[in-house]
Amino acid sequence: MAARKKQAVGVIGLGSMGIGVARTLLERGFEVHAYDVRLEVTKAFAKEGGVASASPAAVGRHADVVIILVVNADQTSDVLFGRDGAAGALARGSVVIASSTVAPEFATDLGERLSAKGILMIDAPVSGGAARAAKGELSIMASGAKEAFRKADAVLGAVAAKVYRLGDAAGMGSKVKMINQLLAGVHIAASAEAMALGIRTGADPQVLYEVISNSAGSSWMFQNRVPHIIAGDYTPLSAVNIFVKDLGIVLDSAKKMTFPLPLTAAAHQVFLGAAGAGLGYEDDSAVVKVYQALSGIKLPGKKTKSKT
Amino acid sequence: MAARKKQAVGVIGLGSMGIGVARTLLERGFEVHAYDVRLEVTKAFAKEGGVASASPAAVGRHADVVIILVVNADQTSDVLFGRDGAAGALARGSVVIASSTVAPEFATDLGERLSAKGILMIDAPVSGGAARAAKGELSIMASGAKEAFRKADAVLGAVAAKVYRLGDAAGMGSKVKMINQLLAGVHIAASAEAMALGIRTGADPQVLYEVISNSAGSSWMFQNRVPHIIAGDYTPLSAVNIFVKDLGIVLDSAKKMTFPLPLTAAAHQVFLGAAGAGLGYEDDSAVVKVYQALSGIKLPGKKTKSKT
Repeated sequence: MAARKKQAVGVIGLGSMGIGVARTLLERGFEVHAYDVRLEVTKAFAKEGGVASASPAAVGRHADVVIILVVNADQTSDVLFGRDGAAGALARGSVVIASSTVAPEFATDLGERLSAKGILMIDAPVSGGAARAAKGELSIMASGAKEAFRKADAVLGAVAAKVYRLGDAAGMGSKVKMINQLLAGVHIAASAEAMALGIRTGADPQVLYEVISNSAGSSWMFQNRVPHIIAGDYTPLSAVNIFVKDLGIVLDSAKKMTFPLPLTAAAHQVFLGAAGAGLGYEDDSAVVKVYQALSGIKLPGKKTKSKT
Repeated sequence: MAARKKQAVGVIGLGSMGIGVARTLLERGFEVHAYDVRLEVTKAFAKEGGVASASPAAVGRHADVVIILVVNADQTSDVLFGRDGAAGALARGSVVIASSTVAPEFATDLGERLSAKGILMIDAPVSGGAARAAKGELSIMASGAKEAFRKADAVLGAVAAKVYRLGDAAGMGSKVKMINQLLAGVHIAASAEAMALGIRTGADPQVLYEVISNSAGSSWMFQNRVPHIIAGDYTPLSAVNIFVKDLGIVLDSAKKMTFPLPLTAAAHQVFLGAAGAGLGYEDDSAVVKVYQALSGIKLPGKKTKSKT
């Protein structure tokens, strides 16, 4: 069989999400030009078969579809428009897939800045966590021009199990993601609050988990995070600090619209309390320790089996 | 076939839950002695084949298993220990299935008061709503003595799809139910907050519903209640006032334990706001109107189809 030229794609940001996406793209036959601010991470990825890029601009020179999976809006701006930024190197008609969770107004603005350089953007925040990133099974809440989706189709198809097309302008993807994060954050804090009170009343945590998982009080987050509390295992799959940031984005955006969010504000305070207690880098289920600190309940220990 | 004597069972309280349970028991071949404080409701049920009882005591004289499905703890006390209460008429060894949502400490105390008269109690709050009550498909969070479960087995089996056995003392059923109601109430208010903010940003409510129902932000309540908001139909399936009461029970119980519940408190305030705005008897999804009042968003109208 004749060798077929691989499609080049760029990945900027090799954190827990980015590295999963980059590896998935490698596995699915792309030539992956990658950049991370931590040089050693970029080099390690090159040993797996990727191409180490010395700057975002170097990524932009070699790929006409680039996924950005950095931590926040500032980093997104920086890798595109900062020194050696990708936007100065990308060809006209290239596509930037901006996948960090950012304020919708930032996403809208970013689309305009890129458009001024002839670059297309897909506002494409992702959902699913590191595990699904590694399997190419992300959900993507995406908005952008048809032409951008056409050009990025193979890349999106490789990394996502589901791409929601939410319109043709940057901003809507981030709006829907913001609403999802509002609920996800509130549900994690509520799960912790509920389990902590349940433990305080003397209920068995495992029994509570089983009954409520099958009742009207259940949520995706309750089912996903409470097992961490029961196992006493706070190894970060997604850290407390992520929701300090994401609920902060929701509250800031809503404040600009003079829109009150009493539940989101309460949940944000619980996450801030956890971060203030030194738990920012633990799993987000560690917000239950805020309730522990305020009530003296005994949480399940790391190797304690539940009584049955 | 020889006629077999029907098992007599009592139902006290013929509200939206009680009437469903009473009818289910009729359908499944029980002789159902029913009482409601509204005489006309009791009489109407007699026309369906039930036995109208003039007082809770009359129920207690004819049945040795009695389900109580009144609104709250005060009514539960009253129909058992008030004038013409059932407790004075029930034979020793009878079983009271106490299914109203009450504070756990009330349930524990009630078990002791009944026990002093030789009456067994199952602390048995239910979950599932009026629709599932009518189909005999409730979930019951139940605790009580083995002997009580043995005697009530046929009755519980007739009205419930699932009976969680949560221990042998009254109190635990109500504890687990309380934790479930905490989450259910927070999730309804959070769903309203999220949908309201989403509408404020210009997102299409139907699209938001579909994406989030399949994402990490989903909850049982989000999936169940948001369609009411999208349809603009606030016909009460479960009313705002139910959660004013139930979250009030959670907060009162926790306060007695000096246990802080910031999310529950915020959600309770939203329900109180809805009740204060005159929405207490509307469907609990009408809490979204609190956000409407505070932001001027336009909610979907009753017959408006969503744009797609």
